[in-house]
Amino acid sequence: MTRPASTSVTVLGLGSMGTALARAFLAAGHTVTVWNRTAAKAAPLTAEGAQSAATAADAVAASPLVVACLTGYDETRQLLEPVTATLAGRTLVALNSGTPAAARGFAAWAGDHGIGYLDGAVKDVPGAVGQAGTLLYYAGAADVFAEHEATLRALGGDTVLLGDEPDLAKFYESAVGTALLPALVGFFAGAAAGRTRGIAAGDLVPYAVRWMEMIAAILPGFAAEIDARDYREGASSVNLFLAGADWDVEFARDAKVDHTWLQPLHDLVRKAAAAGHGEDSIAALTEVLGAP
Amino acid sequence: MTRPASTSVTVLGLGSMGTALARAFLAAGHTVTVWNRTAAKAAPLTAEGAQSAATAADAVAASPLVVACLTGYDETRQLLEPVTATLAGRTLVALNSGTPAAARGFAAWAGDHGIGYLDGAVKDVPGAVGQAGTLLYYAGAADVFAEHEATLRALGGDTVLLGDEPDLAKFYESAVGTALLPALVGFFAGAAAGRTRGIAAGDLVPYAVRWMEMIAAILPGFAAEIDARDYREGASSVNLFLAGADWDVEFARDAKVDHTWLQPLHDLVRKAAAAGHGEDSIAALTEVLGAP
Repeated sequence: MTRPASTSVTVLGLGSMGTALARAFLAAGHTVTVWNRTAAKAAPLTAEGAQSAATAADAVAASPLVVACLTGYDETRQLLEPVTATLAGRTLVALNSGTPAAARGFAAWAGDHGIGYLDGAVKDVPGAVGQAGTLLYYAGAADVFAEHEATLRALGGDTVLLGDEPDLAKFYESAVGTALLPALVGFFAGAAAGRTRGIAAGDLVPYAVRWMEMIAAILPGFAAEIDARDYREGASSVNLFLAGADWDVEFARDAKVDHTWLQPLHDLVRKAAAAGHGEDSIAALTEVLGAP
Repeated sequence: MTRPASTSVTVLGLGSMGTALARAFLAAGHTVTVWNRTAAKAAPLTAEGAQSAATAADAVAASPLVVACLTGYDETRQLLEPVTATLAGRTLVALNSGTPAAARGFAAWAGDHGIGYLDGAVKDVPGAVGQAGTLLYYAGAADVFAEHEATLRALGGDTVLLGDEPDLAKFYESAVGTALLPALVGFFAGAAAGRTRGIAAGDLVPYAVRWMEMIAAILPGFAAEIDARDYREGASSVNLFLAGADWDVEFARDAKVDHTWLQPLHDLVRKAAAAGHGEDSIAALTEVLGAP
């Protein structure tokens, strides 16, 4: 991979993710200007070679490419509303979380002010930013993406443009990301149960990692069933999950671990069985979820 | 890997998993006797060289190692209660699902009848049975495991004895397995949302697979926090998930996808924040889950 020519980049917002982004740009040899509401957060980065801007206006004026990593679109817009004249003609990349609807609104606002705009999402933890395999995806105009792709690739080697509809990154992020909290709660509940038995989370973790990898491996098969709307070949049937539901609750109850969060998931399984999907693949839950 | 001497093995229960087990034993060169309540299910296996027993008693009498893969312990015990005299002195391996409490009860029953007993779990889908990387873990006496380990390894190259407490396999299975349904429902909900936008599940799946792999990669860090009960270094904070909760619901509502199942998960996040864990790692949910 040839290293792109050094570019000036501004990073707004220095939480753990924003700090990781600025650091990755620095590591790639770019001139980096940073700004954070609490200025003290800039100190570690200036020690590494970043310029700290006194105001958001100064930060925006410093670079043709401005990456914002604040909490959400509201905070980002509030910060940038007074400096839209400076932003006009530059490219703004927003890497905050949010809904597709909010991304559409924000992109329209940027367009109204003549700001080149890419909406993006970092699909990994801050510690993975800058690595060759780290995924970031973007939504926006192909020419804007092409202009900055080499620079943005410093944040992760797997840098993808999903399309020009400005809410696509947030749509994918929401659609894919929904699995995170439930999967983690499942692991944490198992760890809480293990603790009652003197089994450390560290003892469970090799098996939990294998389990998540197994889940990853079976998703393509489920996706094919969902797209074909044909669930008849299911080796992991709705009825199998139905049989396991009571055991899950009994296990949690015996271990004195909260299991109330499992109930609506089990209700979905029961609803699928009642709709005639008992012998079908568990992927048939997609039909039940899509018809609330 | 040297191939173990050919052994006689009986497989009881020919659902998709039992069939895969029998096939893996056959592939490893063992003499395999099969039995299923609906005898027709044995036909594909006898075509591949298995012996079909007319009764469970005949099946048990055919081999020193009997592997049962029925729905649960109740079904297994009901089937084997009349043939305990034949089972005495042989080794029984139960690979059904169930609770740790049920595993303890079943192991005691086997012990009372002089049956060597291993309780186990296949930690993968039927299609993965027999492969080098496939994980199966067992609980039971070390000498019984050692006697049959080479034969059992035909079912998966990653064959592990967790310990001699007879419920350990089911405890690990429950503790680790709890994450499966919630993770899948997360993916299916995303697929249902994608469908409303003309995005196929197949379009989401490369990113969903990456996401599950990312989750797998961060579990060891969370496990270390849980075991140290120190959640202060959390890059993925409770407050970050709290901010995302409303977006998840809004996304699902806009896509007309069921989101009621998310509510108790969000309630856990709120409970953790209310307990002072806002700035802590999301792994602090373990404390909330363990104190229902």
